[in-house]
Amino acid sequence: MSIAVQPVVRTLTQDQLNAYADASGDHNPIHVDPQFAATTPFGGTIAHGMLVLALIGEMMYAAHGEAWLASGKLKVRFKAPTRPGDTVTASAELSKEAGGTREYAVQCVNQRGEVLIEGRAMVAA
Amino acid sequence: MSIAVQPVVRTLTQDQLNAYADASGDHNPIHVDPQFAATTPFGGTIAHGMLVLALIGEMMYAAHGEAWLASGKLKVRFKAPTRPGDTVTASAELSKEAGGTREYAVQCVNQRGEVLIEGRAMVAA
Repeated sequence: MSIAVQPVVRTLTQDQLNAYADASGDHNPIHVDPQFAATTPFGGTIAHGMLVLALIGEMMYAAHGEAWLASGKLKVRFKAPTRPGDTVTASAELSKEAGGTREYAVQCVNQRGEVLIEGRAMVAA
Repeated sequence: MSIAVQPVVRTLTQDQLNAYADASGDHNPIHVDPQFAATTPFGGTIAHGMLVLALIGEMMYAAHGEAWLASGKLKVRFKAPTRPGDTVTASAELSKEAGGTREYAVQCVNQRGEVLIEGRAMVAA
């Protein structure tokens, strides 16, 4: 069976970070308080890492459906912060297929080509 | 330096899943449409995996701050679905400390002790 994993592209906004803070209960000021965040080494607010990683989850679910929910594995590293206004592209490349498991090299990059998250995703298929 | 990683405990609601769908842009009916979800093998809505994983991110950030954002790595497996009404406890146990890196065994369990997510988190410390 051929399974195509389509990239997911989304531009993050401060409103979205605020909404994510409410949804997750994580109201850390580095994500939601621009004045505070400006005083940190990041120089401004940054997205919750899991909000960016969610684009990989959404992409994998779209391709693999319930198999992803039931058997998905992720191994990722957070490489750089994502800021409001950044356009994030999540993409996957099939790297291995054996023993009923597919393994993808996955990443999130911003509009400048900077890698935000990179790693691997494994799923029964 | 001694770093204590405190568990994070939170009860998820359908409202929270709906809010997360808006924040992430992932409106998949398995998460937000109870009528549709009842027809699937899950028998009802389930939380976005990244919403549950977010509790691990929040816990690690609380303990390690910007080091987590700048250097955090996660290796996790999704073991079981989380449903609205479930109380999730994210916890970590230090398993290795070497070469300026700390590695934790991390997990999310529900109120019945079922493991929802398990894996490892690595951070410079």
